[in-house]
Amino acid sequence: MGFHVDSEAGRLRRVILHRPDLELKRLTPSNKDALLFDDVLWVRRAREEHDGFADVLRDRGVEVHFFGELLRESLDIPVARRLVLDRVFEEKEYGPLATEHLRAAFEGLPAAELAEALVGGMTKREFLERHAEPTSVRFHVMDLDDFLLSPLPNHIFTRDTSAWIYDGVSINAMRWPARQRETVHFEAIYRHHPLFTGPEAGVFHHWSEGQDDYPSTIEGGDVLVIGRGAVLIGMSERTTPQAVEMLARGLFDAGSARTIVALDMPKRRAFMHLDTVMTMIDGDTFTKYAGLGMLRSYTIEPGAGPRELKVTDHPPEHMHRAIAAALGLETIRVLTATQDVHAAEREQWDDGCNVLAVEPGVVVAYERNATTNTYLRKEGIEVIEIRGSELGRGRGGPRCMSCPVVRDPV
Amino acid sequence: MGFHVDSEAGRLRRVILHRPDLELKRLTPSNKDALLFDDVLWVRRAREEHDGFADVLRDRGVEVHFFGELLRESLDIPVARRLVLDRVFEEKEYGPLATEHLRAAFEGLPAAELAEALVGGMTKREFLERHAEPTSVRFHVMDLDDFLLSPLPNHIFTRDTSAWIYDGVSINAMRWPARQRETVHFEAIYRHHPLFTGPEAGVFHHWSEGQDDYPSTIEGGDVLVIGRGAVLIGMSERTTPQAVEMLARGLFDAGSARTIVALDMPKRRAFMHLDTVMTMIDGDTFTKYAGLGMLRSYTIEPGAGPRELKVTDHPPEHMHRAIAAALGLETIRVLTATQDVHAAEREQWDDGCNVLAVEPGVVVAYERNATTNTYLRKEGIEVIEIRGSELGRGRGGPRCMSCPVVRDPV
Amino acid sequence: MGFHVDSEAGRLRRVILHRPDLELKRLTPSNKDALLFDDVLWVRRAREEHDGFADVLRDRGVEVHFFGELLRESLDIPVARRLVLDRVFEEKEYGPLATEHLRAAFEGLPAAELAEALVGGMTKREFLERHAEPTSVRFHVMDLDDFLLSPLPNHIFTRDTSAWIYDGVSINAMRWPARQRETVHFEAIYRHHPLFTGPEAGVFHHWSEGQDDYPSTIEGGDVLVIGRGAVLIGMSERTTPQAVEMLARGLFDAGSARTIVALDMPKRRAFMHLDTVMTMIDGDTFTKYAGLGMLRSYTIEPGAGPRELKVTDHPPEHMHRAIAAALGLETIRVLTATQDVHAAEREQWDDGCNVLAVEPGVVVAYERNATTNTYLRKEGIEVIEIRGSELGRGRGGPRCMSCPVVRDPV
Amino acid sequence: MGFHVDSEAGRLRRVILHRPDLELKRLTPSNKDALLFDDVLWVRRAREEHDGFADVLRDRGVEVHFFGELLRESLDIPVARRLVLDRVFEEKEYGPLATEHLRAAFEGLPAAELAEALVGGMTKREFLERHAEPTSVRFHVMDLDDFLLSPLPNHIFTRDTSAWIYDGVSINAMRWPARQRETVHFEAIYRHHPLFTGPEAGVFHHWSEGQDDYPSTIEGGDVLVIGRGAVLIGMSERTTPQAVEMLARGLFDAGSARTIVALDMPKRRAFMHLDTVMTMIDGDTFTKYAGLGMLRSYTIEPGAGPRELKVTDHPPEHMHRAIAAALGLETIRVLTATQDVHAAEREQWDDGCNVLAVEPGVVVAYERNATTNTYLRKEGIEVIEIRGSELGRGRGGPRCMSCPVVRDPV
Repeated sequence: MGFHVDSEAGRLRRVILHRPDLELKRLTPSNKDALLFDDVLWVRRAREEHDGFADVLRDRGVEVHFFGELLRESLDIPVARRLVLDRVFEEKEYGPLATEHLRAAFEGLPAAELAEALVGGMTKREFLERHAEPTSVRFHVMDLDDFLLSPLPNHIFTRDTSAWIYDGVSINAMRWPARQRETVHFEAIYRHHPLFTGPEAGVFHHWSEGQDDYPSTIEGGDVLVIGRGAVLIGMSERTTPQAVEMLARGLFDAGSARTIVALDMPKRRAFMHLDTVMTMIDGDTFTKYAGLGMLRSYTIEPGAGPRELKVTDHPPEHMHRAIAAALGLETIRVLTATQDVHAAEREQWDDGCNVLAVEPGVVVAYERNATTNTYLRKEGIEVIEIRGSELGRGRGGPRCMSCPVVRDPV
Repeated sequence: MGFHVDSEAGRLRRVILHRPDLELKRLTPSNKDALLFDDVLWVRRAREEHDGFADVLRDRGVEVHFFGELLRESLDIPVARRLVLDRVFEEKEYGPLATEHLRAAFEGLPAAELAEALVGGMTKREFLERHAEPTSVRFHVMDLDDFLLSPLPNHIFTRDTSAWIYDGVSINAMRWPARQRETVHFEAIYRHHPLFTGPEAGVFHHWSEGQDDYPSTIEGGDVLVIGRGAVLIGMSERTTPQAVEMLARGLFDAGSARTIVALDMPKRRAFMHLDTVMTMIDGDTFTKYAGLGMLRSYTIEPGAGPRELKVTDHPPEHMHRAIAAALGLETIRVLTATQDVHAAEREQWDDGCNVLAVEPGVVVAYERNATTNTYLRKEGIEVIEIRGSELGRGRGGPRCMSCPVVRDPV
Repeated sequence: MGFHVDSEAGRLRRVILHRPDLELKRLTPSNKDALLFDDVLWVRRAREEHDGFADVLRDRGVEVHFFGELLRESLDIPVARRLVLDRVFEEKEYGPLATEHLRAAFEGLPAAELAEALVGGMTKREFLERHAEPTSVRFHVMDLDDFLLSPLPNHIFTRDTSAWIYDGVSINAMRWPARQRETVHFEAIYRHHPLFTGPEAGVFHHWSEGQDDYPSTIEGGDVLVIGRGAVLIGMSERTTPQAVEMLARGLFDAGSARTIVALDMPKRRAFMHLDTVMTMIDGDTFTKYAGLGMLRSYTIEPGAGPRELKVTDHPPEHMHRAIAAALGLETIRVLTATQDVHAAEREQWDDGCNVLAVEPGVVVAYERNATTNTYLRKEGIEVIEIRGSELGRGRGGPRCMSCPVVRDPV
Repeated sequence: MGFHVDSEAGRLRRVILHRPDLELKRLTPSNKDALLFDDVLWVRRAREEHDGFADVLRDRGVEVHFFGELLRESLDIPVARRLVLDRVFEEKEYGPLATEHLRAAFEGLPAAELAEALVGGMTKREFLERHAEPTSVRFHVMDLDDFLLSPLPNHIFTRDTSAWIYDGVSINAMRWPARQRETVHFEAIYRHHPLFTGPEAGVFHHWSEGQDDYPSTIEGGDVLVIGRGAVLIGMSERTTPQAVEMLARGLFDAGSARTIVALDMPKRRAFMHLDTVMTMIDGDTFTKYAGLGMLRSYTIEPGAGPRELKVTDHPPEHMHRAIAAALGLETIRVLTATQDVHAAEREQWDDGCNVLAVEPGVVVAYERNATTNTYLRKEGIEVIEIRGSELGRGRGGPRCMSCPVVRDPV
């Protein structure tokens, strides 16, 4: 009962996914880089692949919620709708002459259409097909095919925008403009959707304040709830040390966790999030990309006084030891397939490490990472393969595309 | 009496400059792009050149204020010091563990040292030479030569951070992170320095809310106070249409101006600000870069009701006509030196158009733009040349490096 | 009889393809840009897709030759092997100390292994597993995983390296280093493989001198044999006007063609080759990408005297008319699917225009370009779809991946 | 007597410089990157600075030759003129229709005009002001302001295109297209100008074959003639190990040198040539950029048999030891100014290390590198400062801008 995520590899019970839709059709060779994609996707096929992913999870007894439906249902609730529209239609974005006009136009849309526009975006041309043009320089200077509302193709990576950590959720401030509007959608859902407000939802903490936390950003792909009151966090291009400190204070004050290990990751797109190079697949077992190497790490624990924190620095060679200590273990098991540097770099690129555990020792992985998958099997891990010829073009694997909301301890 | 700027080319009486200092010594080949510079400068020589610029202005009867002194004097005023430190030392930037520690360290500095650190930046190493290290992941992960406070080399371009428009000032929200901390320094000065609060300062409007206006950004290099109640604004990479609308509303409500012409500029670094391609040098005369071409423009005027605006769109070929109409003239005079496309591109790059009028028909220009300067002289303009071998490496000329605070109408 | 290609859309009888292999496994995120790929491919799946492509062609009665086999068989012929090794192992590339040593090592390989190394590349580590290390600075400075012989992943685009034009073949000088070694492989095949030297091969012209023509480069993707003695050539990033002139002289001297229309294409990677934006699918019918627009064109015909050429310039608006005139037609039919600019840009990226005609009005296309394919069907074209989730990542479609060696007129 | 360079720091007697001219006026913001410059220069001032450099050398008794004059005088010699025109006007570059026409037009020019066009470049527009237009697609597709002959602004760096090493000269194959046409100019001079063919020139070796050596490239900025029969060479972005091996063979066969130390440099533009990070200023003394660190090195000596070479590898930490050994010394003296990493990076960028010794312990340096210059003086080096506000924008200092042709041993 209630929402909580107590581990990375315990039995997964409920998860939020996002089925690919209009927002991915909007990707083009010209805009893909700004939208953080490396390639355009064939959406019909991507959706088939994604359906396959959802089926695999359901087959394993996981209840699947879809972000699109949650958002649509939330937008039928006036206070949630207001929350979202207030955040999207700001004068500082659309100017004093157009903002009210635009907001009124969207205010009048049925929830399904509004949800589609918020996620899929809308061009000036599309707006003008149904609405009058405001007298506004901000609006006039746009070309007809410019986006009035930009699409949010990264919503497919539900892992990042919010992250459940033990008995609470962090609705995250996102690093790059292309994803910042995602945050308010999850605020609307977690604060107002009946699934999360009803009696069976239980009480849960909020570890963050949404996009208002910017520039103290953190993204779920960098957060591993490794169990036993410990959390492993990558400080990457997108996750800042100040956000880690704030999260630490919240978790410790509530008594929800007792230690955080923060890794000083390379600040490069190739190592976008910790889970693109390292994930946890059993109570003491991790997969790790050969090219990651060893990283400086910092153990954060409650300090002497109230709201104080204790920070212990570790040199790179103690990285695994620091993680083990946080888990109360002598040692952890780190699995890295043996292959030449070129092949290893390819599989990391194709999310070879980005697997999603559905129960201890059982993971969902892309079929294309044959070397890694075979290796994991030899090590006793059960690997359930899914197709990802299209999905994988977004540089995100099964873990990136899932947001666990209920998961048992290992 | 009081502060006001009534034109671009009327007699210039008082101006704010910034003498090159530590912040420019911090530029390196590695950080210059992030800090918006194309090259590193030899600061000793740059300072000599800048002194020459100030001398030329004084010779013409212009009173020169230096930003560095104004800031230092402001930091001796507790409320101003608090304003600045509150904005700089935010938990979202430095984290809950280090922020108070850092703020306390800077709070204790004499005004001159504090001003130097705020503008010139400070590395972790320099901080540790005089202060204890906080227990903080945010602080620990930094390398010794990383900047705890990044330098603000663009303060030399005093034109951009604030812009006087008739009887008020716009303290601007800046587009890029490298310049955003500049804004609060001008807030402290204009709101608390005796020069601007004393009885002889008179009453002036504030057309903006500083960095809080972000992402509705506007920069002074895009704003030309062309006189007769008109303002010409370039909507560039850095100046947004929504900011233009907000400014229009403020100016019209106060009765300070009666028309704005907004130009739809290419959104490219080479055309960074309007004044890098077009400036005004007499009551009806402009210099213009040959490669700019004609731009779509929008005339904004007060609308029928209160707080309403009227917007009139013009096709590119009517650009000059729209500017003339705003001035109540039949036509404007646009001076463009005849030279081949390669030479014209070179002189635009070297700020050939970025001249500063000190009175109608008298401008200050870099000596290196020989073709443009000779051409202007043939057209009857008096050109006062200054050296800029080092200054010019920042891609800004005499107009960029000056913020007029008192200027007569033409 | 013999080899000849008399049109773009007449019945296709024989074609050279290249089955994906080791060379594509070598692509990594780090080297893909230098190797001209936008993404890495899953080779096993790419091979399945390519097998499907070959099957479709065979089903339509096309005889399929594989480049890999032709190369291997050629390398069994001493003179061909010598030709290739002489070109690859040059002192200017490998230095006076290593060249002979390396060449001797490769000289000793069986043809199959040699072919694999030449196309798939070889690292220093792989070399050292079987051969001694030469005393050579050139060799010593290499890291173990550096490529001693770089892989040639673009061999999959057999269209470009050689191009049959009526009764002869142009073995092309390639523009970028990543493809230049491909050329000698086709020289070895066309000059020495029994398929092309036997009695049934007939006599055919050589329109070029291979890589020696550099920097006068031309690539087959820019060459459309539009029939009736006409050739349409795109002057792109990779195909130069001087190469077009040289080809014109050769074709006209031999009486093999009577007119060339050369298009002045944008010199951008997105418009890499003419056939990525325009192909011919029937005797008077072309598909064309909406974003291409109209281009300046030049008609080249035999001049008054021997070896003279006549050049007629056409403004952009006459592009279609110039092509029609070369075909002796009043007009040509140009098919462009109606879709918004974002969708059109996506399908061009995914090779929507890069179809391969197997007979007049019958084309092979990627299934992912649903909009374009549906449109073509409505216009009466038969579209045979093939899968290309992996193949398409190389930014080349069915036309790019095929080199017709026998094709009838329409 | 005769031409020979026996050291880096012995008395300098004769040198070739190039006075800035038209070619540098051609630099624009758009073309500077392709032409390998970081900024445009004010040529009038650059020329004054360069005149100052030449004066300083003459004051020290150095005879200064100017490349421009040597080229002009060479072009009055029919065989030299033919050599240059044959290399420049190739059919593979200009096409069969235009090449003869263009060559004839240039053939007819007086030597001074021809030299100016070859070095300064010529646009299509300039060509058409005096010559008829050829019937040629290659020519027609050009815009009027495109360069028919591109300018060669890097001729100012006379150090690179040829390098005197003991009793011979290497006329170098250059790495990047922007400099490749420079080579033939020096071939014309060294093979045909009376200064180098007259009786007093003596006999000297040719260590290379000019641009024909490509891709076995080597540039003079990477070559230090450190004396006592030793040569120090940086294997950089532009200098290849195969070229080092070939040079070694030539030098050893002729008995002109007895050992080469080759350094494995980072292949980055910032470390363009060895002399941008390390130069020699006395018989055992070097300046070195703090950021260079220690490099792997290779000692090359004559081998057992004829034309054989012996190669000895050294780990990074033995770099200085390997250089000392080549000089027959116990140790070398390496001077690196103590300054913070930011300041050091700035001075390297501004050619702080790129000094030119005029006699042992006496160097010419840019005045802007105050920290380095002061440090060198404290170490007993005499530093003659020259101005370089404009010259320095080309990222080359006194050593880059000079080609010693006669220099004594230390």
